[in-house]
Amino acid sequence: MGDLEIRPATTDDVPAIVAMLADDPLGAQRESPDDLAPYLTAMERLRADPNQHLVVAVRGERVVGTLQLTIVPGLSRRGATRSVVEGVRVHADERGSGLGSLMMEWAIDTSRREGCHLVQLTSDNTRTDAHRFYERLGFTASHVGFKLTL
Amino acid sequence: MGDLEIRPATTDDVPAIVAMLADDPLGAQRESPDDLAPYLTAMERLRADPNQHLVVAVRGERVVGTLQLTIVPGLSRRGATRSVVEGVRVHADERGSGLGSLMMEWAIDTSRREGCHLVQLTSDNTRTDAHRFYERLGFTASHVGFKLTL
Repeated sequence: MGDLEIRPATTDDVPAIVAMLADDPLGAQRESPDDLAPYLTAMERLRADPNQHLVVAVRGERVVGTLQLTIVPGLSRRGATRSVVEGVRVHADERGSGLGSLMMEWAIDTSRREGCHLVQLTSDNTRTDAHRFYERLGFTASHVGFKLTL
Repeated sequence: MGDLEIRPATTDDVPAIVAMLADDPLGAQRESPDDLAPYLTAMERLRADPNQHLVVAVRGERVVGTLQLTIVPGLSRRGATRSVVEGVRVHADERGSGLGSLMMEWAIDTSRREGCHLVQLTSDNTRTDAHRFYERLGFTASHVGFKLTL
């Protein structure tokens, strides 16, 4: 399969990331891979924020996975810093290869190094395979995730 | 009831915020209001981060509510910025007064002003009253919230 590297995403990775975001039952309805302008604007904002870690998994020279880790300080739980995982995607060719677990292990290790006491994420109610995946990694489905579209 | 103001929290507000975090069935088990040091350290980190809005609701000169709003840029959903609400607490004397709704309206209005396309939060599975409250405000319980304690 070739060597795998997980590294910070650059602007050059945006098309490959957006293609993965769109290649998904939910993402297909809400992404616009033919118009990268809003993604490039968001990328600038991500790069300027030291609490954001948008990474890609690269095998050979090909982008095969992505996730975003946000470090969130807070007062709750004795001033605990937590991390939030968003936008986890594995390329269709790599599904079932264990890449998702490797990326989540990276997220958990990085959260520890950043001094976080808690890693959290939300997963759409319909993604039942993903729910089992997160439970196998040790996550607990202890919360209800609410969203309000503005 | 006196005038209500929602304003950024200061270091002087930390004892009142921690008292509210601890006065809660879940918070009682995980907060330490007798040792403010870790909270004051976290407060410094919150104040240094322009994407963090920790606010208090004040009636007269008394702190009666708090919440934390985090602005999170991202690539998903056409480069949408989202906001995350954490640590919503209303003082026991003020519960049922509509203060929770006012604070959440502040969070939603601020999210709009910051250009967010989505407001999200997680609520412990056991907080069924809170779930009804968020649904009345227009939130949808569309996600499962996973946590991993480090």
